[in-house]
Amino acid sequence: MSQNRIFTLKGSKSPNKWINILYNIPEALTPLVNPETSEPIPLEMLYKIFAKELVDQEINTKDEFIKIPDEVRDIYSLYRPTPLIRATFLEKALDTPAKIYYKWEGVSPSGSHKPNTAIPQAYYNKKEGILKLTTETGAGQWGSALSFACNQIGIECLVFMVRASYEQKPYRKLMMQTYGGKVIPSPSDQTKIGRELLKDKNNYKGSLGMAISEAVELAMERDDTHYTLGSVLNHVLLHQTIVGEESRLVMEEIGDYPDIVIGCVGGGSNFGGMIIPFIKENLTKGKKTRFIAVEPKACPTLTKGKYAWDYGDTGKLIPPALMYTLGHSFVPPPVHAGGLRYHGASPLLSYMRHKGMVESVGLFQNEVFEKAVLFAKTESLIVAPESAHAVTVAINEALKCKETKEEKTILFNCSGHGHFDMAAYEQFFNGALEDYDYPKENIEEALKDLPKINFPPKK
Amino acid sequence: MSQNRIFTLKGSKSPNKWINILYNIPEALTPLVNPETSEPIPLEMLYKIFAKELVDQEINTKDEFIKIPDEVRDIYSLYRPTPLIRATFLEKALDTPAKIYYKWEGVSPSGSHKPNTAIPQAYYNKKEGILKLTTETGAGQWGSALSFACNQIGIECLVFMVRASYEQKPYRKLMMQTYGGKVIPSPSDQTKIGRELLKDKNNYKGSLGMAISEAVELAMERDDTHYTLGSVLNHVLLHQTIVGEESRLVMEEIGDYPDIVIGCVGGGSNFGGMIIPFIKENLTKGKKTRFIAVEPKACPTLTKGKYAWDYGDTGKLIPPALMYTLGHSFVPPPVHAGGLRYHGASPLLSYMRHKGMVESVGLFQNEVFEKAVLFAKTESLIVAPESAHAVTVAINEALKCKETKEEKTILFNCSGHGHFDMAAYEQFFNGALEDYDYPKENIEEALKDLPKINFPPKK
Repeated sequence: MSQNRIFTLKGSKSPNKWINILYNIPEALTPLVNPETSEPIPLEMLYKIFAKELVDQEINTKDEFIKIPDEVRDIYSLYRPTPLIRATFLEKALDTPAKIYYKWEGVSPSGSHKPNTAIPQAYYNKKEGILKLTTETGAGQWGSALSFACNQIGIECLVFMVRASYEQKPYRKLMMQTYGGKVIPSPSDQTKIGRELLKDKNNYKGSLGMAISEAVELAMERDDTHYTLGSVLNHVLLHQTIVGEESRLVMEEIGDYPDIVIGCVGGGSNFGGMIIPFIKENLTKGKKTRFIAVEPKACPTLTKGKYAWDYGDTGKLIPPALMYTLGHSFVPPPVHAGGLRYHGASPLLSYMRHKGMVESVGLFQNEVFEKAVLFAKTESLIVAPESAHAVTVAINEALKCKETKEEKTILFNCSGHGHFDMAAYEQFFNGALEDYDYPKENIEEALKDLPKINFPPKK
Repeated sequence: MSQNRIFTLKGSKSPNKWINILYNIPEALTPLVNPETSEPIPLEMLYKIFAKELVDQEINTKDEFIKIPDEVRDIYSLYRPTPLIRATFLEKALDTPAKIYYKWEGVSPSGSHKPNTAIPQAYYNKKEGILKLTTETGAGQWGSALSFACNQIGIECLVFMVRASYEQKPYRKLMMQTYGGKVIPSPSDQTKIGRELLKDKNNYKGSLGMAISEAVELAMERDDTHYTLGSVLNHVLLHQTIVGEESRLVMEEIGDYPDIVIGCVGGGSNFGGMIIPFIKENLTKGKKTRFIAVEPKACPTLTKGKYAWDYGDTGKLIPPALMYTLGHSFVPPPVHAGGLRYHGASPLLSYMRHKGMVESVGLFQNEVFEKAVLFAKTESLIVAPESAHAVTVAINEALKCKETKEEKTILFNCSGHGHFDMAAYEQFFNGALEDYDYPKENIEEALKDLPKINFPPKK
């Protein structure tokens, strides 16, 4: 009776290159621009805060593949290749003719897909002589991944953690400390802007915008220190293609191929990394796979946002990019999937959405947790609220197959475990979760506040 | 550079039988006895609270192997086979000639080895018409595993959780609820003994002994309800042999064999399950593997205890068995490895220790957490405080190999993750962990209180 349902590539066959989709769609590359002049930000400015190699990857349209450095592959081997799991227990419970597969990234050291990019980011920075990386973290997923990666690479890690989270989520902080990361509640007295912010006690609890400002300030100020981002940028999605490529290769081994690929979207890195290898097959081999990005209705960037130039952060520190946005001043309702509460989306992913290569859908959180519990009771994994968005659409698509009697193959990225998110499940059990609908008026208001960019600039 | 370091048996090759070591050492089988008469407890009494098949497995000396039912193997396939990992990062950090392998049971749904026995226990009970299982849980590992297993098998699960833990560790409670388990803080008003206990408000916070009493009362009282135990008993160790047998088979595939096998011991199920397949090879094939049981110095049952007849619990509800014990009235100091704070040890494992087939060692908890952090910084896994005991001795043995320049192969059972134990890591980081030494006087006092058993009884 026992069947093969957990599939893993042999370590030595794990991909040795990332897939650079900009080679296939160079027109998807748009710059960050100066909001005053609409001129592209000079690369020299970016080199000040990011590793040169990462900036070069960001704008690379000439290489179809980027070799994964041996040192990075070596650290990947701590948890990669991750398993691809056929959801036989879920399929049975749904009584669907569909085949459901998920890539399980929750086995990584920090519990999500985030280390896939944290490791190369730490690696390239160290190689260029950088001694310390700074970043911000909200709930702590990215900070945990970067702390883990910096420890393995042998470079310092400094995480500014929004003070409200620092106090409410001590376990994530402790995970970062276990990996040797230095965690500072933000705003802090370690930066000029932090000290300034602390003068107003209303700022004491912090925000992601404030934490970004602190992390960037240190990177600007010191030659031996750089800043890192855990999503949104092209090089982040590039590194995450390991997820989709492993999925594609192991499905090839077992003789299957997805009709639909699903993932949740905050900044877009787990979804982007999952779909890019299959997007490439659509573009170059005439495959017809559908791609579905899943968002909370409370923060429906790709579903209800505008394709426009906007700042990357509320504080207007990250220069405008062309992307789907709900407006940088939009504050999403407090849904539990904190990683999906971003006003923008990866410009690369936004381009694909704009061109109709990718669909999107928004969900209420009660449905998401209901399906997450069904997933726990069948497949046995308790997933993060973010990942539960992908679970939900996979279930819904499988139920459609039941109606239409279609034997589709569905694949989704199960991006992380929910061991540090059980409080959200508790609220669901207690019937205390609010279903925040599309906040239409707030978004309309925020969209009035977009920067006026004329790109390409008129000389 | 990337190397194969994660080894997994193909699902279809996963063992289809458990290894019954009582076939090889039938003299290790000793009964539970009536403390008044020293007579063995009649099987009919045990059938009242346990499934008949489990009681029969408990005393089976005639079958070398027990077939794993297909239905059990099917549910095992949710997470088994678990990976065997070569600790290449740890080996490098230690600069040791030793090879270190660990079996990683933290990938199971509830995060430890416990489901390996919870699944068959739920299965046999359901097969015999039982509708509900009861049990007690302290920190929540066993309650989580049984809730998961009962959900998969389709049988009710009722967990009496010590109220102090129920209030302090809500995440474990929520995991049980997610799997559909019913969790009741103990003492409760659901049982006669619970209602009696609640009359004294000093009992309000509960204890494991009180929770056992409540769970057993319901099983005694109702024909459709049975009780379950997550460690100590022969049938529990039998089911856990899947861990050791998978390890043995995958090491055979990669051409290696352990010189030393290590595990932590509370009741003895994770260690017993790991070593039994190798014990069998020592007994039948002349292998010379060493086995090291690891305990806290604060609760050194196998290291400093007495091989004697004693009750299984403080409340004298579980009849006396012949085992290593520190005395049923001994209350161990509050070390963080709650799963290792048991006054007794599996009678089967105790026999092996008594005969010199197994060694044991006790550790201070600061050393244990120091090595756990080293493990996190090298192998990247944050393990449970219990499992960290095994990690520590594996490291220490590897360091001895460095001195002696011996290329030994070390294998340990890494029994669970520490995602719900980060508070213990915090105390370690804050220098607030106490090193509780061997509580000699308390143990001497408790050992005065052993029941007087004359077995076999004089007619």
